[in-house]
Amino acid sequence: MSAPNSRQLVAGMVGGGSGADIGKTHRYAMRLDGHFDLRAGIFGRDPKNSSTIAVGLGVPAERNYRDSHEMAEAEAAREDGVDVVVVATPNDSHFQIARTFLEHGISVVCEKPLTQDSTTAAELVRIAGANDAILAVPHCYSAYAMVRQAARMVRNGELGAIRFVDVEHASGWAATALEKEGHKQAKWRTNPDIAGFPSVVGDLGTHAFHLLRYITGLEAERLSGRLQTFVPGRRVFDNATVELELSGNVPARVWASMAATGHNHGLRIRVYGERGSLEWQHEDPHHLKVQDLAGATTILTHGLSTLHDDASRLTRVGLGHPEGFLEAFANFYSDLAEVLRARRDSTPIPERELSFPTGIDGLIGVQFVEAVAASHQDDSAWKTPVSAYRKATA
Amino acid sequence: MSAPNSRQLVAGMVGGGSGADIGKTHRYAMRLDGHFDLRAGIFGRDPKNSSTIAVGLGVPAERNYRDSHEMAEAEAAREDGVDVVVVATPNDSHFQIARTFLEHGISVVCEKPLTQDSTTAAELVRIAGANDAILAVPHCYSAYAMVRQAARMVRNGELGAIRFVDVEHASGWAATALEKEGHKQAKWRTNPDIAGFPSVVGDLGTHAFHLLRYITGLEAERLSGRLQTFVPGRRVFDNATVELELSGNVPARVWASMAATGHNHGLRIRVYGERGSLEWQHEDPHHLKVQDLAGATTILTHGLSTLHDDASRLTRVGLGHPEGFLEAFANFYSDLAEVLRARRDSTPIPERELSFPTGIDGLIGVQFVEAVAASHQDDSAWKTPVSAYRKATA
Amino acid sequence: MSAPNSRQLVAGMVGGGSGADIGKTHRYAMRLDGHFDLRAGIFGRDPKNSSTIAVGLGVPAERNYRDSHEMAEAEAAREDGVDVVVVATPNDSHFQIARTFLEHGISVVCEKPLTQDSTTAAELVRIAGANDAILAVPHCYSAYAMVRQAARMVRNGELGAIRFVDVEHASGWAATALEKEGHKQAKWRTNPDIAGFPSVVGDLGTHAFHLLRYITGLEAERLSGRLQTFVPGRRVFDNATVELELSGNVPARVWASMAATGHNHGLRIRVYGERGSLEWQHEDPHHLKVQDLAGATTILTHGLSTLHDDASRLTRVGLGHPEGFLEAFANFYSDLAEVLRARRDSTPIPERELSFPTGIDGLIGVQFVEAVAASHQDDSAWKTPVSAYRKATA
Amino acid sequence: MSAPNSRQLVAGMVGGGSGADIGKTHRYAMRLDGHFDLRAGIFGRDPKNSSTIAVGLGVPAERNYRDSHEMAEAEAAREDGVDVVVVATPNDSHFQIARTFLEHGISVVCEKPLTQDSTTAAELVRIAGANDAILAVPHCYSAYAMVRQAARMVRNGELGAIRFVDVEHASGWAATALEKEGHKQAKWRTNPDIAGFPSVVGDLGTHAFHLLRYITGLEAERLSGRLQTFVPGRRVFDNATVELELSGNVPARVWASMAATGHNHGLRIRVYGERGSLEWQHEDPHHLKVQDLAGATTILTHGLSTLHDDASRLTRVGLGHPEGFLEAFANFYSDLAEVLRARRDSTPIPERELSFPTGIDGLIGVQFVEAVAASHQDDSAWKTPVSAYRKATA
Repeated sequence: MSAPNSRQLVAGMVGGGSGADIGKTHRYAMRLDGHFDLRAGIFGRDPKNSSTIAVGLGVPAERNYRDSHEMAEAEAAREDGVDVVVVATPNDSHFQIARTFLEHGISVVCEKPLTQDSTTAAELVRIAGANDAILAVPHCYSAYAMVRQAARMVRNGELGAIRFVDVEHASGWAATALEKEGHKQAKWRTNPDIAGFPSVVGDLGTHAFHLLRYITGLEAERLSGRLQTFVPGRRVFDNATVELELSGNVPARVWASMAATGHNHGLRIRVYGERGSLEWQHEDPHHLKVQDLAGATTILTHGLSTLHDDASRLTRVGLGHPEGFLEAFANFYSDLAEVLRARRDSTPIPERELSFPTGIDGLIGVQFVEAVAASHQDDSAWKTPVSAYRKATA
Repeated sequence: MSAPNSRQLVAGMVGGGSGADIGKTHRYAMRLDGHFDLRAGIFGRDPKNSSTIAVGLGVPAERNYRDSHEMAEAEAAREDGVDVVVVATPNDSHFQIARTFLEHGISVVCEKPLTQDSTTAAELVRIAGANDAILAVPHCYSAYAMVRQAARMVRNGELGAIRFVDVEHASGWAATALEKEGHKQAKWRTNPDIAGFPSVVGDLGTHAFHLLRYITGLEAERLSGRLQTFVPGRRVFDNATVELELSGNVPARVWASMAATGHNHGLRIRVYGERGSLEWQHEDPHHLKVQDLAGATTILTHGLSTLHDDASRLTRVGLGHPEGFLEAFANFYSDLAEVLRARRDSTPIPERELSFPTGIDGLIGVQFVEAVAASHQDDSAWKTPVSAYRKATA
Repeated sequence: MSAPNSRQLVAGMVGGGSGADIGKTHRYAMRLDGHFDLRAGIFGRDPKNSSTIAVGLGVPAERNYRDSHEMAEAEAAREDGVDVVVVATPNDSHFQIARTFLEHGISVVCEKPLTQDSTTAAELVRIAGANDAILAVPHCYSAYAMVRQAARMVRNGELGAIRFVDVEHASGWAATALEKEGHKQAKWRTNPDIAGFPSVVGDLGTHAFHLLRYITGLEAERLSGRLQTFVPGRRVFDNATVELELSGNVPARVWASMAATGHNHGLRIRVYGERGSLEWQHEDPHHLKVQDLAGATTILTHGLSTLHDDASRLTRVGLGHPEGFLEAFANFYSDLAEVLRARRDSTPIPERELSFPTGIDGLIGVQFVEAVAASHQDDSAWKTPVSAYRKATA
Repeated sequence: MSAPNSRQLVAGMVGGGSGADIGKTHRYAMRLDGHFDLRAGIFGRDPKNSSTIAVGLGVPAERNYRDSHEMAEAEAAREDGVDVVVVATPNDSHFQIARTFLEHGISVVCEKPLTQDSTTAAELVRIAGANDAILAVPHCYSAYAMVRQAARMVRNGELGAIRFVDVEHASGWAATALEKEGHKQAKWRTNPDIAGFPSVVGDLGTHAFHLLRYITGLEAERLSGRLQTFVPGRRVFDNATVELELSGNVPARVWASMAATGHNHGLRIRVYGERGSLEWQHEDPHHLKVQDLAGATTILTHGLSTLHDDASRLTRVGLGHPEGFLEAFANFYSDLAEVLRARRDSTPIPERELSFPTGIDGLIGVQFVEAVAASHQDDSAWKTPVSAYRKATA
């Protein structure tokens, strides 16, 4: 995994100003492998703040824009315009901003949830296609090497037919009413107007659901959901359990929470097949547990010489040297860079079965959120996620 | 925990003949603390086999009976008759055998599921009460010291109000069609006529559900269940997921499986409260994980000087010396012995909030199994477990 | 593993009176599999206490003796005399008591350290041989199923030639001056006059050293030891580190401690061979970690169908049902029972490469303790354990 | 942790050409937080290769030099000359190259072992001081947040007086004769002429020893070492055990290995104090285990709000998002950047008790390697590490 500055892609960013952790995380991830040079952006709504941040990031003043229309137009017109724009604004603005760039043929990385409803999400996917632009959604957990190993093992049939999947993203980060104590992130993530969805499903639930889809390659045929609010007075549902029927009649469960007291991060998946099972959890991401029919457990480590290429190609340092969240996020960007560079240089786009999530994944995530909400409102009756897009494109 | 032979109770057994693992387990557990002397029994349907086993166990020939009526009558008539009879026969005979002894005023330990439907289970509970006999059900996992510690912590409010409970008894023991390979235990446990219930819920599911009730003290208000058969051709549902609403509107989940490929035993519970959470799993039974609001995890070990008395009184050996399944089962028998001995000797029965499960627990388990089946047949619609008994006695 | 009372062996005990945990542990272990019937004994020096305990244990009054000479003579003369006597007295009396029974041809289980010096230990071994009696030493950790699995794997060459062994029995049980707070066990275990050796090496160190020998089959050629006293004012060395050269020039290390603050039990062994390595620890005794050349770790569970017979024969309950310390101790007694019964019944003694530790193991343990002390006094110079006995018998 | 490009420091590198993993690792670490801009260097001995790499890294052709003398002179003369040079060449060239830059007043990051003997190492330290240049040694494991937490806890007396330390860097990376199979890194790391020291002590052992010193603040007063060669035909000692007496008479042990079959990375430390103990291991670097006197274990996670500032200031992402090796290495560079920037800008140098290791640490590491070798040659007799420098500067 080299980092040739000379062939760097040019990136822009909207959002990610002061106090915005996610913008910083994107920048760490873009910087790590050196594929991207951040050269343009709008770093918050206050022009002065945005300018200060731009200076700090080495973004030239003339490419520190005031709004996304201005930026899209200017960058599309430049010879050295951005190859991609990262949209890291609050969820309620994703659609307008992403659309603007996509309509100018500029590829976009848009944070999840992609938009606030499946209609607009499908619209974004359509626009990206119509303008020949990439729309990528950073469900970055799927970019961990050991998640790729798991996905490859399932696809290779090493577990046999899949029987059952259990996934949870049950965090304890908001187990108390942080939003009433001035906690900035808690404030917007528990404000349904900004968060975009009135439940943790739109937030952590979509990560869990995407991980399930990424590893197993299965889709949700129908689901039954329940939503709860554990922290009194909270404006969003902070806990959710979902029962799923996946393609091929495979049962599955999802648990999403921001109020699982005592938990740290809480993303974990277990996949059971007829010949074996596997377990991966984000708090120990460089290991993958594999259990065989007899009941023995084998622990595979990131970096082992015996891993599949989908995993081993994502290794920066030696066996036993842990790589973490930023490295996984950087994997997402590396996979994206590979495609963007091929497009820029008109070279063949590498074919990878296991690569970065796209707008379609974002759309399916939004459909999932909507179906869970609909089921909850109907006393957990089974609902089929609106899958018009999938059908249309199938 | 002493073992004074001189004050031993007299025990009888029905079932537990050759090849019957559960009978052997009961005998190990009765023997460990020395509270019981096995002096009477029927060890299988074949008189010759039964006799051979009786000799091996040191049971006098005249107390090796041919059927339970004969045994109940003879033992009830003896001065030194049995204080308790263990019923370890296939599930379809529990009701008739247990009833026979209870009607003679003889206390009974009856394996779960108590009977094959809630009507007969309630009937057993009624008969036990009417005849002033003890009816105990060996959900022995609740007798682990660290489960008692967990139950005490919840009752003491150390976790605050309970928010969510997740429990699973997902074993991999029958992940393949063992029943077609002559595996004796698989044969009867996957035969609905003998197992009593056509699903793993009646088998492992009741253990999981009881553990949930024992630790939290909460009851199921309604539930939604799904049953699956993972192993092709199997006659019972070998996998089940259940969503629950517990008293006080607390959501919970149960997963029961005999086909969770790669798992060994698979019993695990997690309880989340507003101030902390805890996790216990049977494959590491002498530890209890407690997580606080900040996200730190503390691991408590069986034998620590800081444990509650409900846990510390169940300690035979020093700190760090693991106790296992037989010791937990022996704890069940020790708690039972305490009560039986007090009754025999007309001394006050010790009051313990946390002691052995009784027929009512067995009945509630059967009601749970029935409600899950009913929900499954109704496409997972919410069902309220038949709780006439509870209401009648509340 | 059956428990036929009819063929029970008759056991006696010296020591194990009130407050003596180790006596109770022996009785649990003898009782679990039902091989032994405790019928004679001296339960402490006070006749009245001894009598009370005898009654409680169901030991007939006429077989509750006053001293070991009386007991040995009387039991040797009885038709139904004891098959074995357990010596569970303070260490300073082991030699005299064990000798008395052995000289009467009565087999003995003697707690470690066998005696207080290698001369008397060798003398006991000699007397046992001369009188055709069994002398067994309960280093019971070697009786865990997964330790047997480890020992078999090493003997089968599954790890290739052994490279390195690291073992520790580093407990935190006496990390503070418990002996000054009236802690009974701390009092005698930190009193060199009673404990027999002025260091934790005689106590926990011999367990660690025996485990190393049992699993690897290697002997100590020379060693360098260091002793420390961590708790101020303590009369014994409560911490020790030893560097060893085993047969075949294999380096090894032993760490023994009673003051490893925060530790619970602390027995753990790691064995490295040219083709793989393994790790076992007493706080998770039903698992064995095996690591291969590539760096993958496989966790084997007690009860797996794939284990060697040396391990699988020591399984009482199903896969995933943990067995603990008492079960391991009972394994020691079961292996012993097999030999004692064959001798009693004049049937062939089963040949087992992996069985219970004998007096020779006890002797080698004492030699180890002496060599560590000698090295410590000589500023950790290399010492060869006195191995006259081994040479004489080799 | 911001990354203001505008205030970036200018870095140079010697070594780190094709196939040199360590050079890449340094570049990842420098890039992550954006403190450094790599603008000059010599990337290997072959000018053509070096030039190709320079182009790839965006290093201007005129600052791609042929030898370190040329580079030192040219850079020292430039207004925008390098603030620091990273020396990532084979060990045998460290001294000459580092000296050259230090003599020109240019700060140096020099890989360990600093040099091949303590005389030259001390000379480097002297030169750095005389020329007012920083000499930093990347024992980067000490830059993990949870190692800093451990070090702070020890310094704050949270464990009480230290009793015992056990550290190991026992890797399995070279458990077979990789050097004979064309494995590039194995070739030079097992070649004593290039590796600089004929044992794994100079390589992994110095990391373990530094970690011990960093966390405890204690120094080695004397030591006894043993060296082994596990892989037949290997030219270096690939395994070593060392017994230490630290300041204050605290016993300690070090185990270093490159042939611990089955291990991945294998760096782990345990520190025991009179009031508690702690354990950290590199394969799970974002957790720290703390054990209290009673025997309970608490697991602290990187990112917890309750951590000391020395740890919490090293947090890039949210609680439960693991950071790995590159982040730790980047922490080293961030701490260094803070000092270099203060010097460049003539602002006050921040005072930190816990910061990056310097040349003195590198020197003490070399003294450790020499003392172990001397002890080994003298049949493990106790040796005192040559500590003239420490005494001189104390």
